Amino acid sequence: MIEFVLVHGGWHDGSCWDDVIGHLEKAGHRAFAPTIAGHGKAADRRVNHAACTASIVDYIVEKDLRDFVLVGHSYGGTIIAKVAEAIPDRISRLVFWSAFVLLDGQCLFDETPQNVAVSEEGARRSGDDTYLPPFEAVRDSFFNTVSYEDALRYYQRWTPQPMQPFRDRLDLKKFHGLTIPKSYLLSLEDIRVPMPDLSWHPRFSNRLGRFRFVTMPGDHEALFTNPGLLAQKLVEAGRR
Amino acid sequence: MIEFVLVHGGWHDGSCWDDVIGHLEKAGHRAFAPTIAGHGKAADRRVNHAACTASIVDYIVEKDLRDFVLVGHSYGGTIIAKVAEAIPDRISRLVFWSAFVLLDGQCLFDETPQNVAVSEEGARRSGDDTYLPPFEAVRDSFFNTVSYEDALRYYQRWTPQPMQPFRDRLDLKKFHGLTIPKSYLLSLEDIRVPMPDLSWHPRFSNRLGRFRFVTMPGDHEALFTNPGLLAQKLVEAGRR
Amino acid sequence: MIEFVLVHGGWHDGSCWDDVIGHLEKAGHRAFAPTIAGHGKAADRRVNHAACTASIVDYIVEKDLRDFVLVGHSYGGTIIAKVAEAIPDRISRLVFWSAFVLLDGQCLFDETPQNVAVSEEGARRSGDDTYLPPFEAVRDSFFNTVSYEDALRYYQRWTPQPMQPFRDRLDLKKFHGLTIPKSYLLSLEDIRVPMPDLSWHPRFSNRLGRFRFVTMPGDHEALFTNPGLLAQKLVEAGRR
Repeated sequence: MIEFVLVHGGWHDGSCWDDVIGHLEKAGHRAFAPTIAGHGKAADRRVNHAACTASIVDYIVEKDLRDFVLVGHSYGGTIIAKVAEAIPDRISRLVFWSAFVLLDGQCLFDETPQNVAVSEEGARRSGDDTYLPPFEAVRDSFFNTVSYEDALRYYQRWTPQPMQPFRDRLDLKKFHGLTIPKSYLLSLEDIRVPMPDLSWHPRFSNRLGRFRFVTMPGDHEALFTNPGLLAQKLVEAGRR
Repeated sequence: MIEFVLVHGGWHDGSCWDDVIGHLEKAGHRAFAPTIAGHGKAADRRVNHAACTASIVDYIVEKDLRDFVLVGHSYGGTIIAKVAEAIPDRISRLVFWSAFVLLDGQCLFDETPQNVAVSEEGARRSGDDTYLPPFEAVRDSFFNTVSYEDALRYYQRWTPQPMQPFRDRLDLKKFHGLTIPKSYLLSLEDIRVPMPDLSWHPRFSNRLGRFRFVTMPGDHEALFTNPGLLAQKLVEAGRR
Repeated sequence: MIEFVLVHGGWHDGSCWDDVIGHLEKAGHRAFAPTIAGHGKAADRRVNHAACTASIVDYIVEKDLRDFVLVGHSYGGTIIAKVAEAIPDRISRLVFWSAFVLLDGQCLFDETPQNVAVSEEGARRSGDDTYLPPFEAVRDSFFNTVSYEDALRYYQRWTPQPMQPFRDRLDLKKFHGLTIPKSYLLSLEDIRVPMPDLSWHPRFSNRLGRFRFVTMPGDHEALFTNPGLLAQKLVEAGRR
């Protein structure tokens, strides 16, 4: 039995893991999926990266979770790196699923230069410094393995993303020295970022030093588009 | 129901899609596979790239096809780019399957420098400016997923390729500004060109700007070696 | 029916192919798996690369094997290149499975710079110029597709590797001119070496010139972790 803490990516909240958790539990595992501060419906979106990290740390400490696998998806990779710095002894393994692994001093926007202008313009117009891309801008790049109707249905689960956590430069010196075992899980049809080489692996995986490599067919939104397979691969990535 | 216009690659003709069309029709779709001018058995091979493009445009206009998915395979990618410039409003989506995507001003030979000398030498000897590589030169690189006997059987469907369309430099300024949705379908065991990086993706896919990425196991000749799976993936690449 | 000679990689011996041979024989093929001199249990480990190659050549000549497919795994790729120089006329095809293909004048350590210091330190401490990495150093990078328990069980088949064959620079001028057909079989989840690009293909495959490309899901130790699929893919890589 593995215990997971699942940290969602941008535009998502904890409920986006519901189907994955169902599959994990059916296989005898246990999983928690907190919503990052400032994310999800009806949240106060005035958060920075530090507040986001603190909300996940608080969740784990309050529940007194120990010996769990900490999973970060996409932008969630930047969160779990800082969570791991705060409470390394509670974590048995870090799993980065199609996730950003930032270098010391970077912010997320440093790795998505092609998105900065449109995101910042959207944030200015939003009134609350958030951005939600229109469906037509993400149908092909995020939901490429499913029909238009399914893609639209999953997209409707998205909520506006606070932009400040994408701008905050992170001190990651401690993270890059941590000896917690690490895995990189790659969705093979996921090419959203980064330009120009279009690939998560080896660009980000390689920054982990020694890591376990696990792959699966699928796109960036496999938690919606193929939750059963994702659950199975999280077990392969997360086990001892 | 999707309507497809399938544009073949070098050494092929429209009949090479026969098995794929069978699978598409069984799944409720409709497909046309014109033979490019100068290609196939008994054709007059004195064609340039413009004549090739015109023959496909004429086919579509004569049949008054509209709202269809235009697929290009390999060299066919250079044809559909120019067809799309001529009749953009008729096309709902462009699908490049293991296909060349040329930059403005390039010719196909610019992307296969390793093949130019042997192809030009063959063209000189042919008497009609065509080239057909011997079976042993292509068995491993084009038909790598099937037996020798099957590879030989499929190779016997090939006909000599006019070389002028590989030399013609293309004005593609309009193509690179078109907003028609685009997909790139990659056969994962296809490594024929280009040297030196051996990969169609991201070298060519990346030139499309925003695109839907779809992959399948298989080789460069999957229209022969795995037509059922190719048909399924053309639907995933071509749907709305 | 194909006849195979299977040449193991570092830390392995001929018996590591047992399960693969079972699957090959069940499919009607025949396979030999000699142990390289200086490798396996109770061997005299004072060998250099030339002695390793000679032991495989002697095995083949003594059995008078002809018209066989010669397979090299990992470090075994450096052995089969030299074996092919010695007895090219006996070999119908060379298959490199997640194997090193060295350039003329290189040694294996040239392609694994990240491993040299720890390997040499281990060799100094060993007393017999060998090195065996601890399980925790290889669990994630070699056995990434299986459970901890299975990984440990397979690791216990490993024996200390003589280091001199990794240091010997090889004259490979003749090899790179050989016209024996070649295949490269890639395990897709195998990312052990080389840094920094983490990939066997196209780094090593590309050095073969024309080759047949075959892939399979799996890790670097698929002869343990998925012998049935490996046997099937060796047939696809090795057939005419």
